[in-house]
Amino acid sequence: MSQDRSEGDLRATGLALKHDREWDYELDRIVEEVADRDAETVGLQFPEGLKRRGPAVADDLRDELPDDTQVMISGQPCYGACDLDTYLMRRTDVFVHFGHSPMKESDKIIYVPLFSNVDVFPIMEQALESELPAPDEDPEVGLVTTAQHMNKFDEMRGWLEERDYEVHTRKGDERLTHEGQVLGCNYASAEVDADQILYVGGGKFHPLGLAMEHPDKKVVIADPVNNAVHVADTEKFMKQRYASVHKAMDAERWGVIFCTKIGQGRWDQATEIVENNDDAYLITMDEVTPDRLTNFGMDAYVNTGCPRITTDDGPQFKKPMLTPQEYRIAIGEEDLEELAFDTFHGTW
Amino acid sequence: MSQDRSEGDLRATGLALKHDREWDYELDRIVEEVADRDAETVGLQFPEGLKRRGPAVADDLRDELPDDTQVMISGQPCYGACDLDTYLMRRTDVFVHFGHSPMKESDKIIYVPLFSNVDVFPIMEQALESELPAPDEDPEVGLVTTAQHMNKFDEMRGWLEERDYEVHTRKGDERLTHEGQVLGCNYASAEVDADQILYVGGGKFHPLGLAMEHPDKKVVIADPVNNAVHVADTEKFMKQRYASVHKAMDAERWGVIFCTKIGQGRWDQATEIVENNDDAYLITMDEVTPDRLTNFGMDAYVNTGCPRITTDDGPQFKKPMLTPQEYRIAIGEEDLEELAFDTFHGTW
Repeated sequence: MSQDRSEGDLRATGLALKHDREWDYELDRIVEEVADRDAETVGLQFPEGLKRRGPAVADDLRDELPDDTQVMISGQPCYGACDLDTYLMRRTDVFVHFGHSPMKESDKIIYVPLFSNVDVFPIMEQALESELPAPDEDPEVGLVTTAQHMNKFDEMRGWLEERDYEVHTRKGDERLTHEGQVLGCNYASAEVDADQILYVGGGKFHPLGLAMEHPDKKVVIADPVNNAVHVADTEKFMKQRYASVHKAMDAERWGVIFCTKIGQGRWDQATEIVENNDDAYLITMDEVTPDRLTNFGMDAYVNTGCPRITTDDGPQFKKPMLTPQEYRIAIGEEDLEELAFDTFHGTW
Repeated sequence: MSQDRSEGDLRATGLALKHDREWDYELDRIVEEVADRDAETVGLQFPEGLKRRGPAVADDLRDELPDDTQVMISGQPCYGACDLDTYLMRRTDVFVHFGHSPMKESDKIIYVPLFSNVDVFPIMEQALESELPAPDEDPEVGLVTTAQHMNKFDEMRGWLEERDYEVHTRKGDERLTHEGQVLGCNYASAEVDADQILYVGGGKFHPLGLAMEHPDKKVVIADPVNNAVHVADTEKFMKQRYASVHKAMDAERWGVIFCTKIGQGRWDQATEIVENNDDAYLITMDEVTPDRLTNFGMDAYVNTGCPRITTDDGPQFKKPMLTPQEYRIAIGEEDLEELAFDTFHGTW
């Protein structure tokens, strides 16, 4: 049974898929839960990059489930376990969230982690050769990765230890499920006693936050997806942050965003600002986008929701968009030199 | 006390606003409700065009309310009374929805209608001279308007009757609050015994739907906001609808959208399609946008939510987006000649 009809339905053609199935959707576990709970409705939520697989997963589930089970797919944007579709969750008997590790366990939710099957060791080898100091120079190295490669974490550690590195890892805080795991908003697992951190994973999103949160450490990126080794460079981003803070110093009216997504709310931080500034207004929303803010016509905004909207999407907003600490700097409560990456802790 | 700080705060300058206050936000009624209910939190929701006034309204409210009352402004998009911010409504003691007439009364919600103070009669005069037949030719005329001009409806009727027209009006169905009122998705108030309908109001959005829903009638638009008279022309839109239906005829996989906005859900229509088509998938979302659908990679979509997303925004979607009836035409269950404007009835 193909789980990838999105690349063409091969069932009736006599052909087989040319490559191995990349993801294990754990359909058996879902089917079992539906039976156990006598569920009539099943909600499925996929992150953006996997939404295209949704219909094929729904097909395979419908083949296994009783005929009268209603399968629904969330069409809401989804960028993390902080971003559960609570509407669909409340209205379905079984709710399945794919692709992220649990931020908080709940009977209502089945989390299905999706692990990459890419081989990480060739690119780790390259990282060692080109960017990491040799173990006889500095053997201490921190090791972190994302949920996608978590299944290989112990192997990665062993591989480094075989090469005489002393590998430092930790679990981080309660927002993180696994030892060595990072999120785009939380790098507590990298608070280890080493001057260099090896990040194994795809893309620049996670290591950029990691480098901003730990500016004292060298962050070496071994990217097995794009087959590349980099050292994270935060300069461009830090310049953008300084520029935004400077622009916001003239602001008279502030929009203070409280994000209504289940794992992105920082109520105390949002209300504290509004209570202490008569020219600050509390605005509630789920998706924080330039269009939505433009309509309010404020001079500047403080985003207490996802920090990455502020740092990564910030330049797309027409008015300066600051983190809570950057706001305190802009109004003179803290010094510019103290500017640090905004991280998110706790769950909900 | 100015209710319009968004155009510059004149309180401390000794100047007065040059024009009359345009809107009455009924702050006294809100303050009274807060006292009656001992409310600690107040949520305010404005339609897109009035969001810019939000901060000034919040200022005026905060001046009147006890110091510890928390005022919050909804940052969610809002296009009608069908589009209440249910998150904010559930989490505030008093929830105020500005600018739309009630779709359904509820103790939880204070609806504050906002009436335009523009003079409608000069443009009605012009409409009579240029587009409406003289009363001795055809005295029967239907009269409709939007919530914004509802406060002048009786005067409009009287004005036409003085000029010897026989004015036909009706209340429409339960989705409509007032006699003669139209919504973008419901023109039941225009089902009157007259071949011509006079629509008094701004913009082309409402009369376009009106003309599509009543193709047998001549729809004359008297637009006092833009000071213009037109006859509604649906040709371009109808061509787009035909083109979309034709393109969708080749679709193999269908995304069927169930809209989760409180007044935009048509569950029975959505589930009926999915139950009868193995290649149709139920997708739930609030805002229906091209970006959100692109990620699913279906061949065509059926939108059971707001009909105006389909007809007005349709061309922005990368794949054909059909109304439920258009879907039935595309799969051969109905004839193309039967194609009619999709309207929305009932509340929630």
